[in-house]
Amino acid sequence: MQKIDLIQQIKAKKSFLCIGLDTDLSKIPAHLLQQEDPIFEFNKAIIDATADLCVAYKPNLAFYESMGAAGWESLRKTMDYIPAHCFTIADAKRGDIGNTSAMYAKTFFEPAAAGFNFDSVTVAPYMGSDSVTPFLAYANKWVILLALTSNEGAKDFQFDSFENGEKVFERVLVKSSKWGSDENMMYVVGATRGEAFAAIRKLVPDHFLLVPGVGAQGGSLSEVCKYGLNKECGLLVNSSRAIIYASNMIDFASKARGEAIAMQKEMEIILQENNII
Amino acid sequence: MQKIDLIQQIKAKKSFLCIGLDTDLSKIPAHLLQQEDPIFEFNKAIIDATADLCVAYKPNLAFYESMGAAGWESLRKTMDYIPAHCFTIADAKRGDIGNTSAMYAKTFFEPAAAGFNFDSVTVAPYMGSDSVTPFLAYANKWVILLALTSNEGAKDFQFDSFENGEKVFERVLVKSSKWGSDENMMYVVGATRGEAFAAIRKLVPDHFLLVPGVGAQGGSLSEVCKYGLNKECGLLVNSSRAIIYASNMIDFASKARGEAIAMQKEMEIILQENNII
Repeated sequence: MQKIDLIQQIKAKKSFLCIGLDTDLSKIPAHLLQQEDPIFEFNKAIIDATADLCVAYKPNLAFYESMGAAGWESLRKTMDYIPAHCFTIADAKRGDIGNTSAMYAKTFFEPAAAGFNFDSVTVAPYMGSDSVTPFLAYANKWVILLALTSNEGAKDFQFDSFENGEKVFERVLVKSSKWGSDENMMYVVGATRGEAFAAIRKLVPDHFLLVPGVGAQGGSLSEVCKYGLNKECGLLVNSSRAIIYASNMIDFASKARGEAIAMQKEMEIILQENNII
Repeated sequence: MQKIDLIQQIKAKKSFLCIGLDTDLSKIPAHLLQQEDPIFEFNKAIIDATADLCVAYKPNLAFYESMGAAGWESLRKTMDYIPAHCFTIADAKRGDIGNTSAMYAKTFFEPAAAGFNFDSVTVAPYMGSDSVTPFLAYANKWVILLALTSNEGAKDFQFDSFENGEKVFERVLVKSSKWGSDENMMYVVGATRGEAFAAIRKLVPDHFLLVPGVGAQGGSLSEVCKYGLNKECGLLVNSSRAIIYASNMIDFASKARGEAIAMQKEMEIILQENNII
């Protein structure tokens, strides 16, 4: 998906919500466990209930891999089911030497390989440019690079300062933004880092930011938007557990829809207040 | 596998060779493509030809994932086939927030999950402690954390200096070595970084180092050993392409064995010269 189409979806749906499909057999409603593929049935119901309210879905690869080959098959069916108007993110945190990153890119971007046609993959920056550029060789596909993550461990390295005073996450933004453009790179910036959004927007004013950490992890949507919105919106705010596990009963899909509506309404007001719609 | 058992294997086999199973349909001998599972048949032949010469096997997850669910099944069969006396490394470069890293640990360490029982997983350090510690919760399992990688992009961030003069890879070693011990953590240090091994050994004298980059990537075994060996060996030197693709004809397994013998002989001399055997 191209940037212009993503922005158009945001305006049409009045939403910049991304729904994380962290689908876990131990958390989904018990009645689904009788189905042949409970993970796919759960995802299908969630997608049916929310596709008009969100602009992106983000399956978390760990949850599918933990079920081996069967999990990959559930993910493939899920990807086939997601409507084309939704941007898709393989939340995989990959990154390796060039020839290996090229294999990961093939996995997620070439349908003839593993059956997937994701729009984007999350990538870790530690191994540098040649671990990222193989993903950028695909037209209309995106790298979403880790910059400032939402977890406690982000404090171990990401905020440390180099000799020139620049912080690790700032250098990651500055260097990596030269490897691609705001048409094929986004950055992960945790919602729990509200105070950092202003500094980040000075370095990457035009890039989309994927923002996890609203909901279960405690981040604030209004704070994120206050400092993180740009004139084209420029944010995909993710919620996983707060939406998909709103209920673990027979009503799980309608409860998930209820949570998604609440977030979409908040986002609509924010988009209006900022003259984006 | 415990550290003491790994050291015992090194002494018994007079080898600290790790063979990387970067198995690629486009590179394996054409006659295997007629088989039902060419990837597994190739790996099986390589393992049969080399298991007495190496102490570890390192499947590169990207190559299996690029074939989707079928690739995961080939990997599962390969893991079942590797003899128990060989240490196994899931070269996956994973790492995410705590609950997600816990799912990755389950994937690679709990046979009841995805069918794998790896001894270790490679992990990227960017997200800090809580992205690593879930893997360390398993007895006799290992994290192999990226410190200094063998690729060109390593220069983008890993050698950069912090305010106190410490380099990024040095801080990764110093901080992370407190999250576990030399009984459950190793580090990736590329063979192409010979000059850095002396500095690294000052920071982590007792940890095993996994050393990729000998062979196709141009690193030197003698240079790595000169600065990297410790009194218990402390090195696993990986070769992937130079061994497994020594021939792409019907003789591929015997040619792979020939390359593995050559490396084992070099390693035997080095172990003798350093009074380790």
